[in-house]
Amino acid sequence: MTLPDPGLIAPRRIAVLGAGSWGTTFAKILGDSAEASSVPTQIVLWARRDEVAEEIRTQHTNSTYLGQLPLPQNVTAQTDLTEVVTEAEVVVLAVPAQSLREHLRTIRGATAEDAVFVSLIKGLERGTYMRMSEVIAEELAVSPAQIAVVSGPNLAMEIARGEPTASVVASADESTAERITAMCSTGYFRPYTNGDVIGVELAGIVKNVIALAVGFCDGQDLGDNSKASVITRGLAETRRLTAALGGEVETLAGLAGLGDVVATCASPLSRNRSAGRLLGTGLTAEQTAQEMTQTAEGMKSASAVVDLARRHGVEMPIAEAVVAVLDGALPVERLAKLLLARDLKSEGK
Amino acid sequence: MTLPDPGLIAPRRIAVLGAGSWGTTFAKILGDSAEASSVPTQIVLWARRDEVAEEIRTQHTNSTYLGQLPLPQNVTAQTDLTEVVTEAEVVVLAVPAQSLREHLRTIRGATAEDAVFVSLIKGLERGTYMRMSEVIAEELAVSPAQIAVVSGPNLAMEIARGEPTASVVASADESTAERITAMCSTGYFRPYTNGDVIGVELAGIVKNVIALAVGFCDGQDLGDNSKASVITRGLAETRRLTAALGGEVETLAGLAGLGDVVATCASPLSRNRSAGRLLGTGLTAEQTAQEMTQTAEGMKSASAVVDLARRHGVEMPIAEAVVAVLDGALPVERLAKLLLARDLKSEGK
Repeated sequence: MTLPDPGLIAPRRIAVLGAGSWGTTFAKILGDSAEASSVPTQIVLWARRDEVAEEIRTQHTNSTYLGQLPLPQNVTAQTDLTEVVTEAEVVVLAVPAQSLREHLRTIRGATAEDAVFVSLIKGLERGTYMRMSEVIAEELAVSPAQIAVVSGPNLAMEIARGEPTASVVASADESTAERITAMCSTGYFRPYTNGDVIGVELAGIVKNVIALAVGFCDGQDLGDNSKASVITRGLAETRRLTAALGGEVETLAGLAGLGDVVATCASPLSRNRSAGRLLGTGLTAEQTAQEMTQTAEGMKSASAVVDLARRHGVEMPIAEAVVAVLDGALPVERLAKLLLARDLKSEGK
Repeated sequence: MTLPDPGLIAPRRIAVLGAGSWGTTFAKILGDSAEASSVPTQIVLWARRDEVAEEIRTQHTNSTYLGQLPLPQNVTAQTDLTEVVTEAEVVVLAVPAQSLREHLRTIRGATAEDAVFVSLIKGLERGTYMRMSEVIAEELAVSPAQIAVVSGPNLAMEIARGEPTASVVASADESTAERITAMCSTGYFRPYTNGDVIGVELAGIVKNVIALAVGFCDGQDLGDNSKASVITRGLAETRRLTAALGGEVETLAGLAGLGDVVATCASPLSRNRSAGRLLGTGLTAEQTAQEMTQTAEGMKSASAVVDLARRHGVEMPIAEAVVAVLDGALPVERLAKLLLARDLKSEGK
């Protein structure tokens, strides 16, 4: 028996929608992982802008977000959304949360029937209060086994530089989680499977809101003790929300919960924390958004998180304070006092 | 009815044993808290060295540890251990963990019968594997209601500067926890009560070991993603140990668990993390100990933690790796690989 000429076999195709820092970095992970495996694979990034797609295709760099870091040879890019997803076995979603639905509407019908959709997005849709996996299920009418989410302590620049990182791949279907995990495992990126999609998504969503609060503390020159308290109480309110929505509170103690929050707290690279820092120095939400080169998801999701919590009767004082600052209803100088000003009482209460 | 001349009433006396950075800072908290209350109080620090006691008494500073920061007028210092504790209503313990027992033997019999003992020490006694509250109970034969522990995200220098900080006061007796909480509450220091002495002590003990591992990462130039993974997995093994020893795992999600670890991770001020950084650049444990001006408790407690875990059949791979590096059995360069090198699997397993 002779093997067919590899040149004649169409390579496995993985689409990545969104060529920002995380989308591009995840394409690099997929490319490096595929190169180490024996399955010929093509990773196709969808970029909104022509010049970004062109640069990735011809120079194998994305200088806007990742400097001169070289992308693997099996990563390419296009600007036609429908073309990118056609025949893709896996479609990775790395677009801003509030635009996911319209992107899904564009690709509906163009994807393979059994394609798996992987969300890298840490945001909640405004108005519907839906998590990204829910938006995918609704718009594409696919089964839970065709949906996965990736979340964890994943500062894109560190991963792009090849620094050792762990992460979580969650899916309601164990074999889907295992398949995606195998596709994105490399020497520097170690994903673990998890069955709790709700908990993993909520952890990522609220983390961005907590990161804004930590940024406020930075902007107000508060120390690490204060920030640690904000983080601890922020995770406690995320746990309450997760429990109310049917997720597993244990998830919050793992890489997608605690791990992600800690990485954000330790790093000056976090986008949401940077946005919080600007707000903390007294800039308005509008001024801050103008200063940022990429979306700070927390600024968009915070009010949806608070609304969702209220609907479920969950108290989230830190998220509420963040929304009040974003809305201009609470001067950021008053925040510190507010965060610590509670009567002496038992920790759990 | 005429009130007695306040000058004739002996003021309430609180002894603080240990004039290092945390002992001195806690004396400042007690002093500020007393000044804001109506109870005349004298806080007496015990310092081992004459010149330190003399400086605190006459200049109201402890320049060795807190620079030119002024201590309240109601804080004084002496070098006679027995004299310091005599007639003290509360005795706060802030000496190195391995020397607590000998200090307690010295003061045995000199303290009031109903005195309360408050441990600020985050260490485990070598050889006996006893927590500080256990050493106190054994040496002084006092009831659990006379013992409390304080722990939390409490970088001493930040508190000394008056930055807002939350903390935990744990005692098996609720009224004792409430009493100590009231004694150390000020505008910048907010303690919460907690009934889980075991969990609060273990959290603080293992935190110092995790901080060493985070320091190793610093020394090896690993990024915040890697450190976040070490912290997440470190807290997971602390949870396992706490459960095995009868503590409450929820404590680890609070200020004394997560909060303390996060503050350590975010701050370059942490003593144990600094020690880890030196070890991470290749110094031996002996060379590192010589470089440090104060005890890095984690270096002393790590092997006791691992022994205690083994006795209870609890796996603690991060603590074991720290011990192996301290013993010179594991080159620190091999640590990163070891920490991430696991087969692809589910997060909880």
